[in-house]
Amino acid sequence: MIGRDLLGIEDLERLEIERILETAERMKEVGRREVKKVPTLRGRTIVNLFFEPSTRTRTSFEIAGKRLSADVVNFSSRGSSLKKAESILDTAKTLDAMDPDAVVVRHEVAGVPKQIADALEAPVINAGDGAHEHPSQALLDMLTVREQKGHIEGLTVTIVGDIAHSRVARSNIYGFTKLGAEVRVAGPPTMLPAGIESLGVKAYTNLRESIEGADVVMALRIQMERLEGACFPSVREYAATFGLDRAKLRFAKEDAIVMHPGPVNRGVELAAELADHRPSVILDQVRNGVALRMALLYLVAGRGGR
Amino acid sequence: MIGRDLLGIEDLERLEIERILETAERMKEVGRREVKKVPTLRGRTIVNLFFEPSTRTRTSFEIAGKRLSADVVNFSSRGSSLKKAESILDTAKTLDAMDPDAVVVRHEVAGVPKQIADALEAPVINAGDGAHEHPSQALLDMLTVREQKGHIEGLTVTIVGDIAHSRVARSNIYGFTKLGAEVRVAGPPTMLPAGIESLGVKAYTNLRESIEGADVVMALRIQMERLEGACFPSVREYAATFGLDRAKLRFAKEDAIVMHPGPVNRGVELAAELADHRPSVILDQVRNGVALRMALLYLVAGRGGR
Amino acid sequence: MIGRDLLGIEDLERLEIERILETAERMKEVGRREVKKVPTLRGRTIVNLFFEPSTRTRTSFEIAGKRLSADVVNFSSRGSSLKKAESILDTAKTLDAMDPDAVVVRHEVAGVPKQIADALEAPVINAGDGAHEHPSQALLDMLTVREQKGHIEGLTVTIVGDIAHSRVARSNIYGFTKLGAEVRVAGPPTMLPAGIESLGVKAYTNLRESIEGADVVMALRIQMERLEGACFPSVREYAATFGLDRAKLRFAKEDAIVMHPGPVNRGVELAAELADHRPSVILDQVRNGVALRMALLYLVAGRGGR
Repeated sequence: MIGRDLLGIEDLERLEIERILETAERMKEVGRREVKKVPTLRGRTIVNLFFEPSTRTRTSFEIAGKRLSADVVNFSSRGSSLKKAESILDTAKTLDAMDPDAVVVRHEVAGVPKQIADALEAPVINAGDGAHEHPSQALLDMLTVREQKGHIEGLTVTIVGDIAHSRVARSNIYGFTKLGAEVRVAGPPTMLPAGIESLGVKAYTNLRESIEGADVVMALRIQMERLEGACFPSVREYAATFGLDRAKLRFAKEDAIVMHPGPVNRGVELAAELADHRPSVILDQVRNGVALRMALLYLVAGRGGR
Repeated sequence: MIGRDLLGIEDLERLEIERILETAERMKEVGRREVKKVPTLRGRTIVNLFFEPSTRTRTSFEIAGKRLSADVVNFSSRGSSLKKAESILDTAKTLDAMDPDAVVVRHEVAGVPKQIADALEAPVINAGDGAHEHPSQALLDMLTVREQKGHIEGLTVTIVGDIAHSRVARSNIYGFTKLGAEVRVAGPPTMLPAGIESLGVKAYTNLRESIEGADVVMALRIQMERLEGACFPSVREYAATFGLDRAKLRFAKEDAIVMHPGPVNRGVELAAELADHRPSVILDQVRNGVALRMALLYLVAGRGGR
Repeated sequence: MIGRDLLGIEDLERLEIERILETAERMKEVGRREVKKVPTLRGRTIVNLFFEPSTRTRTSFEIAGKRLSADVVNFSSRGSSLKKAESILDTAKTLDAMDPDAVVVRHEVAGVPKQIADALEAPVINAGDGAHEHPSQALLDMLTVREQKGHIEGLTVTIVGDIAHSRVARSNIYGFTKLGAEVRVAGPPTMLPAGIESLGVKAYTNLRESIEGADVVMALRIQMERLEGACFPSVREYAATFGLDRAKLRFAKEDAIVMHPGPVNRGVELAAELADHRPSVILDQVRNGVALRMALLYLVAGRGGR
């Protein structure tokens, strides 16, 4: 049902997203068992090909693969020699010749997973590419919202932060709008890309307005090195204006939940007490991440002989 | 029987230590088989969370986990960003949300494993924290002595080296005294912490006196960068005075054994010929380390549904 | 049949090489299954002990071990402290005490795997040592040639590049001559070691002459940092004279194949279009590498209780 590769939410149909979420819900049940392992992918090989350090996402995919009984091989590379496109493709094709059943790719440059997918026989899962997409993160976010709210259609989801540079924002915008939610994005003008409305969202530079009536408020991680720059506010200014705390959250619906892809800059995009307590569901997102990635690996690597 | 977490020998009762050693003896038998694997922890996830490089201890825990059929995930982090307490706890809680059955923690700062244990649902095993404790090392040392001597009660154990900065020394002092041995510590005055006698040991600045009549002489690894400092002797001076060789060992009991946590600075704390031959039992310690860690993982991660 | 250790092709008899290749052919069949896993090495422990970075070879051995159901533990070390022979042996002996069934060693200094093998109880497989040997690479090359050509006896194999500094060249020279091929080596005079003819090969400084009538042309990876040196040609000069492209290949047999151990410096030792298309068989070499290493691990680590 989902394509050979999973490169972005933009490419998925609503029915495909729903199928992934339903598969993930069944996988969640495995995580609750004492023996957290099913033989589904026994004898399959998953390669984690990470050109950008990411211990959280890599670990989540690794645990997901192992719980499905797959053999998981980690391949990290940061050497400058691997930064050239030729060298990246060469590495990927070499690994491909070892007959993996799926290759999970992260790279700091948008589009690299697609280039790799085009060159490889094995299916590719994008684990985050530049400011393009981070589909497994958006899918675990949708899984978490559906679990917390019972449904997604008709909800109002506000994403706050550096929308212009966030692959998490992009993937979630595609996903939540496809599932029938109203998506709003908020941030200082320099963090809102021109023409973002064409993606079907409403853009706000006023936090209060953006979260008024929201069911879900998702704060993005701020790249601290971006702040203090010429056209960006200082950390203190950003925290005061767009940093979420209980006071500001009062404008959202009473039962609104708070999400964050982690790791949180406490006191910047999210107040510490909010990061660690309800209504934030950050650790639920992490837990759902393993189940969601089990679902992806099952759907991509487990579809019988290729 | 042992607590939820294993943070230090200080917290253990004598009966708990004995139960761990007996479990480890049964695990040793698995290591002698052709198929060195039992299904005990099938479907359980062990996370090795190492904030300080330690390939030996990490490898020992990894092999131990795999021989119990657990899924073992390595997570190493040395980045300065992970040095802040907030960030360490954040990483640990993120991993905890992936539902591991045990988290093995090493950190260069004393007390970090305890902080992590307080925050996590999964049980925590301390794999060494600063100059505080290194319980699995002390337990494998006790296992080795019991194997070599048949018992521990009534033995005289001398620990030689930088007692003040050694977590191995601290854990062994707690362990051997609890099991009824007489423990002596020896080193230059600057390496003997004030008030060490309150732990139930005798302190010596004269090596010969300290090993007179000893059944076990344990040399500690010297941090070479500490020597040559203002208040420490030179490497040459330390080796001449406290470095163990066959001549000095003659003052111990005739059947005394020599131990070392590894890796040995040959010619400094231990003469090369002594490091590599009986009566040193250094490789027995390593071999017992795998069995001992299998026992710990079994007792901590294998106790049925939490 | 093959010895306790596999340190080099120089030590192998023709019959042993043939036995390894036949075992590898049976292993290839496993890689074509949907469940690419056999229980052959269940409960055995393989340690990858890499003192020199090599993600490709390490990954190939790791996947090979896992497809045989072995537990594979990776141990990489580049710290200067591990560069001293004492420290390397200490590390190896420590790992040996954890009862691995095979230790795969790579080191930048020739002879280190042999030193380790002499000190260890576990059998050692050399995964490349300095400019000495890289036996698993040569064996996968022989496997690939036999698969492509049906036989090796009587073929003409030309190896082009820095013969003097190439462990791949040395191992292949031993292997192909033992199997009855005519081996030629070609390169600028500074890259041809004096007395190379004593290994039973013909040396050429003229590429055209060296590949005339060849069935197999193997280009070696050029260490770019060697070029531009005092006695070596420039990259441009090397590429013009010894870089292989379709025009130069016309002097070889019509059905000649092109090989390379990877990764290719495209446009230097091999033209890009040749690297990526027939008659080059570079990805076949990689695929065969996994099967060949499965065979080695099976023959070395799977021979019943030691």
